[in-house]
Amino acid sequence: MAELVQRYLDEILAEHRDSTEGRLADYIPELATVDPSGFAVSLQLTDGFVYESGDTATEFTIQSISKPFTYALALERAGFDAVDARIGVEPTGEAFNEISVDHRTKAPKNAMINAGAIAAASLMPGSTPQARFECILDFYSACAGRTLEVDEDVYRSEKATGSRNRAIAYMLQSFGMLDGDPDEALDVYTRQCAIRVTSTDLARMASTLARGGRNPQSGQRVLSGAVVQRTLAVMMTCGMYDATGNWVSSVGMPAKSGVGGGLLTVLPGQLGIGVYSPRLDDTGNSVRGAKVCRSLSARLGLHFLSVSRESRSIIRATRDVAAGVRVYELHGDLLFTGAEQALRTVEEDSADIEVVILEVSGVDDSNDVARSMLAGMRESLRRAGKEGCLVDPDRTVLTAGSASDAVVYSTVEEALAAVLDRRGR
Amino acid sequence: MAELVQRYLDEILAEHRDSTEGRLADYIPELATVDPSGFAVSLQLTDGFVYESGDTATEFTIQSISKPFTYALALERAGFDAVDARIGVEPTGEAFNEISVDHRTKAPKNAMINAGAIAAASLMPGSTPQARFECILDFYSACAGRTLEVDEDVYRSEKATGSRNRAIAYMLQSFGMLDGDPDEALDVYTRQCAIRVTSTDLARMASTLARGGRNPQSGQRVLSGAVVQRTLAVMMTCGMYDATGNWVSSVGMPAKSGVGGGLLTVLPGQLGIGVYSPRLDDTGNSVRGAKVCRSLSARLGLHFLSVSRESRSIIRATRDVAAGVRVYELHGDLLFTGAEQALRTVEEDSADIEVVILEVSGVDDSNDVARSMLAGMRESLRRAGKEGCLVDPDRTVLTAGSASDAVVYSTVEEALAAVLDRRGR
Amino acid sequence: MAELVQRYLDEILAEHRDSTEGRLADYIPELATVDPSGFAVSLQLTDGFVYESGDTATEFTIQSISKPFTYALALERAGFDAVDARIGVEPTGEAFNEISVDHRTKAPKNAMINAGAIAAASLMPGSTPQARFECILDFYSACAGRTLEVDEDVYRSEKATGSRNRAIAYMLQSFGMLDGDPDEALDVYTRQCAIRVTSTDLARMASTLARGGRNPQSGQRVLSGAVVQRTLAVMMTCGMYDATGNWVSSVGMPAKSGVGGGLLTVLPGQLGIGVYSPRLDDTGNSVRGAKVCRSLSARLGLHFLSVSRESRSIIRATRDVAAGVRVYELHGDLLFTGAEQALRTVEEDSADIEVVILEVSGVDDSNDVARSMLAGMRESLRRAGKEGCLVDPDRTVLTAGSASDAVVYSTVEEALAAVLDRRGR
Amino acid sequence: MAELVQRYLDEILAEHRDSTEGRLADYIPELATVDPSGFAVSLQLTDGFVYESGDTATEFTIQSISKPFTYALALERAGFDAVDARIGVEPTGEAFNEISVDHRTKAPKNAMINAGAIAAASLMPGSTPQARFECILDFYSACAGRTLEVDEDVYRSEKATGSRNRAIAYMLQSFGMLDGDPDEALDVYTRQCAIRVTSTDLARMASTLARGGRNPQSGQRVLSGAVVQRTLAVMMTCGMYDATGNWVSSVGMPAKSGVGGGLLTVLPGQLGIGVYSPRLDDTGNSVRGAKVCRSLSARLGLHFLSVSRESRSIIRATRDVAAGVRVYELHGDLLFTGAEQALRTVEEDSADIEVVILEVSGVDDSNDVARSMLAGMRESLRRAGKEGCLVDPDRTVLTAGSASDAVVYSTVEEALAAVLDRRGR
Repeated sequence: MAELVQRYLDEILAEHRDSTEGRLADYIPELATVDPSGFAVSLQLTDGFVYESGDTATEFTIQSISKPFTYALALERAGFDAVDARIGVEPTGEAFNEISVDHRTKAPKNAMINAGAIAAASLMPGSTPQARFECILDFYSACAGRTLEVDEDVYRSEKATGSRNRAIAYMLQSFGMLDGDPDEALDVYTRQCAIRVTSTDLARMASTLARGGRNPQSGQRVLSGAVVQRTLAVMMTCGMYDATGNWVSSVGMPAKSGVGGGLLTVLPGQLGIGVYSPRLDDTGNSVRGAKVCRSLSARLGLHFLSVSRESRSIIRATRDVAAGVRVYELHGDLLFTGAEQALRTVEEDSADIEVVILEVSGVDDSNDVARSMLAGMRESLRRAGKEGCLVDPDRTVLTAGSASDAVVYSTVEEALAAVLDRRGR
Repeated sequence: MAELVQRYLDEILAEHRDSTEGRLADYIPELATVDPSGFAVSLQLTDGFVYESGDTATEFTIQSISKPFTYALALERAGFDAVDARIGVEPTGEAFNEISVDHRTKAPKNAMINAGAIAAASLMPGSTPQARFECILDFYSACAGRTLEVDEDVYRSEKATGSRNRAIAYMLQSFGMLDGDPDEALDVYTRQCAIRVTSTDLARMASTLARGGRNPQSGQRVLSGAVVQRTLAVMMTCGMYDATGNWVSSVGMPAKSGVGGGLLTVLPGQLGIGVYSPRLDDTGNSVRGAKVCRSLSARLGLHFLSVSRESRSIIRATRDVAAGVRVYELHGDLLFTGAEQALRTVEEDSADIEVVILEVSGVDDSNDVARSMLAGMRESLRRAGKEGCLVDPDRTVLTAGSASDAVVYSTVEEALAAVLDRRGR
Repeated sequence: MAELVQRYLDEILAEHRDSTEGRLADYIPELATVDPSGFAVSLQLTDGFVYESGDTATEFTIQSISKPFTYALALERAGFDAVDARIGVEPTGEAFNEISVDHRTKAPKNAMINAGAIAAASLMPGSTPQARFECILDFYSACAGRTLEVDEDVYRSEKATGSRNRAIAYMLQSFGMLDGDPDEALDVYTRQCAIRVTSTDLARMASTLARGGRNPQSGQRVLSGAVVQRTLAVMMTCGMYDATGNWVSSVGMPAKSGVGGGLLTVLPGQLGIGVYSPRLDDTGNSVRGAKVCRSLSARLGLHFLSVSRESRSIIRATRDVAAGVRVYELHGDLLFTGAEQALRTVEEDSADIEVVILEVSGVDDSNDVARSMLAGMRESLRRAGKEGCLVDPDRTVLTAGSASDAVVYSTVEEALAAVLDRRGR
Repeated sequence: MAELVQRYLDEILAEHRDSTEGRLADYIPELATVDPSGFAVSLQLTDGFVYESGDTATEFTIQSISKPFTYALALERAGFDAVDARIGVEPTGEAFNEISVDHRTKAPKNAMINAGAIAAASLMPGSTPQARFECILDFYSACAGRTLEVDEDVYRSEKATGSRNRAIAYMLQSFGMLDGDPDEALDVYTRQCAIRVTSTDLARMASTLARGGRNPQSGQRVLSGAVVQRTLAVMMTCGMYDATGNWVSSVGMPAKSGVGGGLLTVLPGQLGIGVYSPRLDDTGNSVRGAKVCRSLSARLGLHFLSVSRESRSIIRATRDVAAGVRVYELHGDLLFTGAEQALRTVEEDSADIEVVILEVSGVDDSNDVARSMLAGMRESLRRAGKEGCLVDPDRTVLTAGSASDAVVYSTVEEALAAVLDRRGR
């Protein structure tokens, strides 16, 4: 049955396979010699399962798709303030290799253009370029779930021909946006662009972002949620160069492409996609890669601004288990809007009840604000001489680190017994 | 207890109340005479409940916040092709009243700048400017859930002084981007900008978008989901002028501001917010309005790229109710990723089972792709001599219009009885 | 013999006659219906003599070539300060019909783009558009030396289709750069563009500028020297749109072209040229017109930065006509450098002489600074007990309005007699 | 008496001496330590005489004033085609150290910005950077008339801090606009900028351009006329960065400034000016330097588009020295317009005369086109059985290399005798 999904991917690949639009990047000979017909798509769910179609074993260099990852690593290691002082978050319509800096601050406009990416590479920890690169390679490998390697031919070739990037590095230094030796920062960046990946590696890296910074396969947390949120925001507004508006309108997933032919997209909370097709359009994006993403978004309903839900209540059922003791069964996401609804309903009922039991075993997700709102509800009941407690057998809502005074039970029965006991009934 | 949320809003307003940063718009006298201290925030949930804090009864002119709504109405009435031929979807860093058109097509870059908004107003149906304006006013009123009115003083004043907009209208005509009389299109647009709203009206209009085009209060569908998705995409990339990257990074909700002091933000699927504070910053955005949005996003966890969920399985439980008959209880969103997981799990189990009963009463949301995947699963089971059916008492998944041959029951017991009967046991 | 020059012109026309590069302006039907093969060049010397070759009787509309003339008239009538407050003098690379205003002042960048030209038209004296236009028509006619007329078809057609210019006029009003009714200013400008001229009219208008504001034929002064100097400066830096650097390098004469196919160039002090060929290049300049100007400049040595002169002394001869009385014969231009040389030479000789007689009948040109330097010389001699006088039979140097105490004679003999008499010899 | 001019300069310096507007360049320490009060102006006539006022012995580094000279040298040595393939001639409004290249060709916009200047330095002949620099230093010294030297401190300091220029050099290489090692080209450019000059050196270099490429003092020809013409054209349109239009309008002389505080202007055919005052305005131009140039232009009437001449005829007198033998005395410049007038007049007279004697000892200047026109006149007379000859005692018109068959005499008498003899009278 899962072959249904497999079939979707196969069909989409088949639809676009014959397109020979676009052409190979040729600014270094190594990129111009790859097989132009290479075509692959990989999709990883956030539980780690991967679908693959096409040449998913083919390795290619990651190129600009490295940019969001090194940016994320810089945020993680150097902190938001240090990074924000050097790299902006505003889009620019210009091509990837332009020197595009803020008119006033002289900081590169964002981390998705070369200037910002070189600045990000310069912020890696480590006293030597080698150490700084190891830091990057280890991180990418942790995201991809396997040890990645550098394509030494591509690295050497780009290093030999990269006078444009050298210009950018020196320009950044002249603006005070790059400490240390520009050639060293450039070397780290050039190496990072030459790391070899497959479409499946990209899908795994994407779903690490989709899962908020945790590798779905290994379970390892490699980035904080705040860093992922920022990285996805920048990918969304700056990742596809001058077609941002069109991409957000038609695909609706944060994405990043590379001149090696790779393209990576993320549906936050859901999945990650990696595509490979080396023929590029005029803006340097993979032609078939972009088409596949458009098809996937439309066919599978992946646009992140799609609002399909018909607004079901978080309260799936209520029942009185004793006089004045009402159980509320909560389902779905217990975030701000869910918690708000729960609070409001309980309040409306409050004349009739003395004890509120929230049964949250059906809850999918919760966050700090919701937890703090539940704490507020309990406090509010207490002040009115009433009581609230939680049935949360899997500790979905009250995870480690939550307020210690919360009253939590594994079953409604257990909760009811305790309540009746406490209230002297 | 719901006063907890009320208190959040009150606190956020209190925090920012003393700020006197920014200044009133003064390009027409009427705007310069409003009380600069006016301050209000309204928040509407998608079930229609509204929180209000501050001067939520104060009326002000909607100004540029009208732009996404007229754009949406144009898409709805004239269709995507007709609108896309006249108005782009790419951001521009320029100020709201610049003539910013695509270099090649001469179409305004997007509908959030005046040029694009005037073009959108010219696409309204109706043979007279009056008829076209009525169409707009009716639509805004339907979104806000009350009959809105024009501030005639502001309208007349803007009409008398609007030589810049007149310039834009004639420029559009010269580019072939505006049919009919430019002065008439401009009149419609000027009137639309002078419609009076409160912060609560804005919150209601926002939550109509948040609910995918259905007014949460009245339940009336005023826009299709596809139009809402496009409108939100454009608001996100173009709505806050030249601070898009910063806004997406720090607030993470599609938004639109107006020089009347209003600001509207949408959290898709969740809620809509309207803020009012008439002092503007240099880019024409409400100073305190933007601060309130930042606080709300951070405090209530509203950033739409926030990935808090720890990836719970859509399959909450399985149980065998007879030999070879397994029930799968599904919870949460049954979209592509949920359906994929269900299919995959059933497939893995398929050696052991003959009948699959999906219990979907705990499902919050589903979409076409998921339904088609379930149909595929049933077909796949059938080909293997097996069987699949659905327990969907509320018809959450199989709504009207779904495939008629689906086998649906109200309870597991009912399903089991039917299955055993069919299989001759 | 003068047929030599005629032959030059005929040859240059013959060389370029077969070129069919470029295409007719087509934004109004009237412009698209002219004979594309029309080709003419006229050249007027500053003594009024005119050479003509090709279709010099063909009339066409002046279009943008009107811009420097209305600008000059505005400077003459409204004064430099009033005009400079509304219209800049900086070049812009943009096309002629862009709205290009100074970022800070909002004044149009220069008077050679439509925005600046409409602003200039609005500065004409007169209480009605008709009066303002009459003022322009009279002035152009005075420059051309015949009564010019409007092509009413072109005027009406441009008026009907000119929404771009209307946009510009309203934009200027919104910036506070245009007083009164924008439609009226536009009407004056549209009429001015539709005035009919021949290549010979353009040559006459050009040589009126070449002669510093005096019509070479009629002798009528129509502009002051300062206005002409400014107008030529703006033509030079802004007249050929985005090919200024190339034009100054290769042609080296201030110029202006029009979409009607005309092109006018000025060699200050020397001559004016008018060319007609209606096929335009992508920037709106006459293709063959530009080629003819390049050929004329190269062939006839007309580049204004050409420095061929081998620095002859202004003092062509000296002779002592009595003991201590020396006559200096001056030839050529008596401007600053000539006067300086005369002063220096006299000073070097001063030990030997008591009386200096400057014989200036060979002087071609002089200016105020030179006259004041000669006055200084006379004063300096007087303080040393010596004497200086002028032999200036044609009043070339000491024109009306010069210092009344100057001692001027018609012949050296007359001067010598007077000097000897005064010195009691 | 020549002290009159001296006094002009002293007065102008005195007027502006107290201005402390602007500030020292500080991007390298050496520039920030100069005496900010230094102030000097030097003016050299094309006969080699120099006026000086203020601190004319103070040495400072030439900086960007080197740009037109290295550009000229590149044109002279590498040829127009080679240089034009690498460096454009179009102005750019951007600051001197921006990377401003043509959108299409990737060639630097012009030679007055750093990118173009580095490209020009890379075109010097020589197999080593040292040889290429020697070539430059020798040329500058020949222009200045003394052996110039490098300020080693400034050179080393700029070399150490010049990451911006390094960026530019590598960018040029990446565009294919710079052959060889970018660091070597940069070293030559950095050295050239550190050459020390005085205001008088600048005046001498300027008047070398003013005299068409011949050092007025030494008489040495260092550049061809065509190279000078091009260089002056580029200085005029690109020399003063983003104030070109204002400078051409108000000063009207090609100019170039440097951050060392120097400023050089050229009045073609007349004089060269060097000014020194190290406080700079925001655009990097010397504040008092620019003021002095404005004052000099206005006070001394130096604007090159000033048309003061009242159009005197080149034919100052005619007389018949025998029956049918007419002498025409020509005065002033015998360029195209003068020759044309002579031809035309002779033609009008032709019914009455058989022999034309042109007396050209009063001619100031002539050029090839005029000579060829006189040859045409002679040929034309010959064909009509008539005769033309020249009285040119100083060989002003018929210099070496002129047509050998020209009939030239030293006096009218000599010419008449020969003519009568030939015609058998």
